[in-house]
Amino acid sequence: VTTAAAIIIGDEILSGKVREVNLPVIVDLLHELGVELRRVVVISDAISDIEAEVRHCARTHDVVITSGGVGPTHDDRTMEGVARAFDVPLERHPEIERMIRTYWKDRLTEAALRMADAPRGSRLLYGSDGLLPLVACRNVYVLPGIPKLFAAKIKSLAKEMAGSPQVLQSLFLSADESSIAAVLWQVEREFEEVKIGSYPRLDAVDHRVWVTVEGPHQEQVEQAVARLLELLPEDQVVRVERR
Amino acid sequence: VTTAAAIIIGDEILSGKVREVNLPVIVDLLHELGVELRRVVVISDAISDIEAEVRHCARTHDVVITSGGVGPTHDDRTMEGVARAFDVPLERHPEIERMIRTYWKDRLTEAALRMADAPRGSRLLYGSDGLLPLVACRNVYVLPGIPKLFAAKIKSLAKEMAGSPQVLQSLFLSADESSIAAVLWQVEREFEEVKIGSYPRLDAVDHRVWVTVEGPHQEQVEQAVARLLELLPEDQVVRVERR
Repeated sequence: VTTAAAIIIGDEILSGKVREVNLPVIVDLLHELGVELRRVVVISDAISDIEAEVRHCARTHDVVITSGGVGPTHDDRTMEGVARAFDVPLERHPEIERMIRTYWKDRLTEAALRMADAPRGSRLLYGSDGLLPLVACRNVYVLPGIPKLFAAKIKSLAKEMAGSPQVLQSLFLSADESSIAAVLWQVEREFEEVKIGSYPRLDAVDHRVWVTVEGPHQEQVEQAVARLLELLPEDQVVRVERR
Repeated sequence: VTTAAAIIIGDEILSGKVREVNLPVIVDLLHELGVELRRVVVISDAISDIEAEVRHCARTHDVVITSGGVGPTHDDRTMEGVARAFDVPLERHPEIERMIRTYWKDRLTEAALRMADAPRGSRLLYGSDGLLPLVACRNVYVLPGIPKLFAAKIKSLAKEMAGSPQVLQSLFLSADESSIAAVLWQVEREFEEVKIGSYPRLDAVDHRVWVTVEGPHQEQVEQAVARLLELLPEDQVVRVERR
């Protein structure tokens, strides 16, 4: 299984000045690709926070995606944090610098050139979006936080990742969750690669609990669903969804 | 300043089966109370993840709020994770047990009683919401993940927290962010307790950058705004918002 972590950077998210909207994009894309998202962290622009979290996530996950903190202003410190996390210097990248000079022309400022700084040894991933390339340092992919740019950049990232999509089937039950807990637990133990989830629904019109059965193999998931249907009281199963 | 961290627990959030909606509620409430949210983490139901993250956050923040993983099923392991984080045993709490027995009556199962388990030494916070009380273990407040229940419970928590509200004023500029970066950086250094943020807006009709000026004291914030207006080109200031 390919595993991923996401680090969302910015005081403005934590203080509520800007609403976080990139997380659902990450979640849906990774799910579709079959990459397992294991951890998401929202942290401030403080350099020590970025450094510590990038170091931790890069060591414990195959892929790390960061969002935010890559603009031209003083509070944009993601690149510096990534560089520190890997103990490499932050350097002006000649290729990005060339692109910025071409685009900004006579409006060029020292601040704009900050966006050409990248950790030593970074790779550039070019997209067909007309934006600056995506910077990848080892297994860390540094994306802009602005939702439109983020969505464009994560597309070029998708090609780099290969996962193993999961099979998901659902049971909708009229039961009280606590009355079926023992059965769910039993069936999960019987099927090694299958994960069973259980989510109470307070507002659903026809059921009270949504039970999910997931795993990498269709056959195992189907067998686990069959086993659940065998053990659960028939009149409590409202419907089964096989996809 | 009172600081807070939030830990959102559940595979279903990371896999996209359930959309996370409690975070905006936490963000807005803490902002209103003047409590500084410094870190948000979304982790799986794995007991080791919960234990490690609760231990880390409880040590480095005044208050920790957890969301999710407190139901009757086998994948609800938040209480156990909190107990391990503080090296205390998980015990059946007689007061919660009494309430569960009263409510569930003859439908009572062993699974329902799992919801009476709490780390030794926990306090109970009663609300007027008719729900089970909120469990607080040291500085960690354990909330249910279901949005309706979460919103109800965080209300009783608000009374426990006292923060110091921040003053926020805004400048909306027609400038390119990189052309004003140096000025923002200079003014932030001039005013010790003031934080300046800068957010490009791709879709706004009348401006290109939103600049925020924040701090605990009205007077300092106003002085910083005045200083910015002095240094920025007049024709690039679209409007100023003083609240």
